[in-house]
Formats: sequence, C-alpha cells, structure tokens
Amino acid sequence: MPDLGPLTTALGYDYQNQALLAEALSHRSAGSTNYERLEFLGDGLLNFVIAAALYRMHPELDEGSLSRLRASLVRESTLADIARDIRLGDHLLMGQGELRSGGFDRDSILSDVVESLIGACYIEAGFAPAEALVLRLFDTRLHNLPEAQALKDPKTQLQEWLQGQKLERPVYEVIGKEGKAHELQFTVSCVVASPAKTVQATASSRRKAEQTAAADMLQQLIDDAL
Amino acid sequence: MPDLGPLTTALGYDYQNQALLAEALSHRSAGSTNYERLEFLGDGLLNFVIAAALYRMHPELDEGSLSRLRASLVRESTLADIARDIRLGDHLLMGQGELRSGGFDRDSILSDVVESLIGACYIEAGFAPAEALVLRLFDTRLHNLPEAQALKDPKTQLQEWLQGQKLERPVYEVIGKEGKAHELQFTVSCVVASPAKTVQATASSRRKAEQTAAADMLQQLIDDAL
Repeated sequence: MPDLGPLTTALGYDYQNQALLAEALSHRSAGSTNYERLEFLGDGLLNFVIAAALYRMHPELDEGSLSRLRASLVRESTLADIARDIRLGDHLLMGQGELRSGGFDRDSILSDVVESLIGACYIEAGFAPAEALVLRLFDTRLHNLPEAQALKDPKTQLQEWLQGQKLERPVYEVIGKEGKAHELQFTVSCVVASPAKTVQATASSRRKAEQTAAADMLQQLIDDAL
Repeated sequence: MPDLGPLTTALGYDYQNQALLAEALSHRSAGSTNYERLEFLGDGLLNFVIAAALYRMHPELDEGSLSRLRASLVRESTLADIARDIRLGDHLLMGQGELRSGGFDRDSILSDVVESLIGACYIEAGFAPAEALVLRLFDTRLHNLPEAQALKDPKTQLQEWLQGQKLERPVYEVIGKEGKAHELQFTVSCVVASPAKTVQATASSRRKAEQTAAADMLQQLIDDAL
C-alpha cells in the first residue's frame, strides 16, 4: 500500500484500525473481505448527513427540492469527483485483472469507496466524527448548490412557469406510435391554450416524449416573453 | 388535539417543542406548515439507523442481504403497522376532506408521520435520542427478521438452488407477445436441462413473467426433490 499520509490529510481523519481501513479500500476482486458491507453502511450515513445539512441550511425549500438537491450531491459521478480530488484511486486494493482494466479510475468503484471510508469512520469512531468527515468532503459542494429550480423535471418547470403567469396547464396527448413492440416510438403533443402554442416530440417512451416536449415548450415561451 | 400522553408513552420519548411536534403531526391538508420536510429528514435517519443496526447484528450477511432486510423493515406497510401499534392515527392533524376520506388510517400518511416524528426528535434532541427512538420502534422487528433467503427474488432463489445442487442455470426465453402496445402480455418459458423441465408464465412485462416462471419452477423442483 502506498503511503497513506496524503489520504489522511485529504480526509482530515486518521483511521486507527488498519484492518478496517484495508477492508474499506478493498474491491471485491481483492478477496472476500472487501468494502461492500462498509459501503452499505456508509451510503446510509452519507444520505442522512446530507439530508440533515440541507434541511438546516435551507428552511425555505420544500421536501421535493431538498430531495432533488440531495440526489445531485450523492450521485455516483459526484462521489467519483470527490474521490479523484483526494486521489483515492492510488490507494484502492484490487485484483490484477481489475487493475489492468482501469478499475482504479472507474466511477462506480471510486464512489463505492468514498462510502465505505465513511462507513469505516462511523464504525471505529461513531456518528459525530463520521458526520464531520462527510461535511468536510462535501463542504464546497454544499455551499455551491445548483439552483433547486434547475433540478426539476421539464414538465414540472413548465407547469410552475405557467402557474406563475396565471396561465392554464398544458395538455399532453399521444398523437402517434410507430415501430415494433420492443422499439416503439411515441410522438406526443404539448398544447398551451394561451398563448396558443403546440410543440411535438418523439421518444422511446411516452414519458420521455412529454418531458422533451415540455422543455421545448418552456424554452419557446421564455424566448417569446423576452 | 387529544391527550398526547399515550403517544409519548408508546414512543418512549417526550417532545419538548410543541410547535415542532404539531408540524410533525400535520398533513398537507392541514396547511402549509406540515410534516413533509421533517419526513424527508426522518426517512434518512431511519434508513441509516436500521442499516447500522443490521450491519452490527449480522456480520455474516453480505451487502445484498442487508439491503433487502432493510427494505423489508422500512417499507410503507411496515411503518404503517408500527403507526397503528402506537395509535398514531388518533393524533394526526388534517383537513376535513382528508379526515372524511379516511386519511387518518391511510398507509402512506401513517408511514410518513412515523418518519416525521423521528425527524422532529432528531431536530430537538440530536442523533443519539433519535437513534434510540428508532431502535425502540423497531425492536421486535429487528429481532424477528425474515430469513434473508426469503427476500431474494425468485430468479435469484432458483439460480442459487440449482447452483447448490451443482445443476446448470435455467434458460429464459420470450415465446409469445400478445395484445396492443400499451397492454402487451409476455409469455416466457423457463427451461432447466437436468432434471429436464419446462414451465411457462404470462405477465405484463418480460421481467414479471420470468419471475413468475422461476417461482413456479423452483416450487416444482423442490416438490420433486422431497
């Protein structure tokens, strides 16, 4: 294992139990004692600590916005970015095959290990130090959140924009279905009564087609309003 | 509000902040200050505390089994059962319409309020008392867990049973599709080479049909083996 000093510094936490730390850093390909149970534990702790931080920092946000913000923070790609920031890949323990295929830089593995390290901290030190570790790792991101509005799906954004203008809700209708059963393409229309406007979109599911149509409609309405 | 004494006794926790408690007990139909933010928080805490309890109680279980056990404990119907055990419905604050339509006994609302009460405890008292509250509410269920095996889906159960008998994997094939696009019925065959056996099942998705066929196949193999 390379020198753990830089990792300890980056995490701001010094693991006492070296066997537990090795478990947290071990991919399945390294053997039967690996990070998977600790990852399960750390995932739960991470989700809760981020939820609690958002709850306290944003008394003005409703539960849907809090939930979307949390999802954006704890998703795999964000965790993998954090792992790369602290050069976690240098410390992973994995089998030769997994190493050769680039596992040390794979998003799914890097994000798992961020969680397993959080879980290991909780196991040896308890809730408060593990919470502090999460808040350190996410400090910058918690203070630079995306606008809650931008995380809403296009249909919700469109409906809220129309409500804000005291306009009627849009009407969606499936106006075409083409292709064989397993490759059906749905064409959907989205109609707004006032200002009278219709857009269409085609996608592999009704839901996707509606979302695409809604995004297009909202963009057109905003452009018209400028 | 009816006397909160029985609820306090059932929870084993006495809320100090009455405004916070009222918020935790208030359905959306009662007004804009309602339990939804606290529910978001309590859901996260509940998931983590149950994960940590299962992790500690079951060092022999892998992450998949832990995850299935947690899902069985925190699902809506289990939370609603717990809510009924402590007669939570008597204390819900909701609008007239929601009351008349039976909202005080609806699984979705009852389970939400179990979570919001956990969230409120955390907000006013911190992690340790909220953790203790969760462990009290789930004490019986944590000590009477379903067999991890029984929570696996039928395809996994069938495959593991065949592996245990050193037999080959089953082969699934879609052998029929009927009906219009939005009401397609899939018929799937599940074939085991040795002992030679075929079963079929029909359902609204390929996945469901496969699971039904697998469950049927496993039952037949076990019956034959007896």
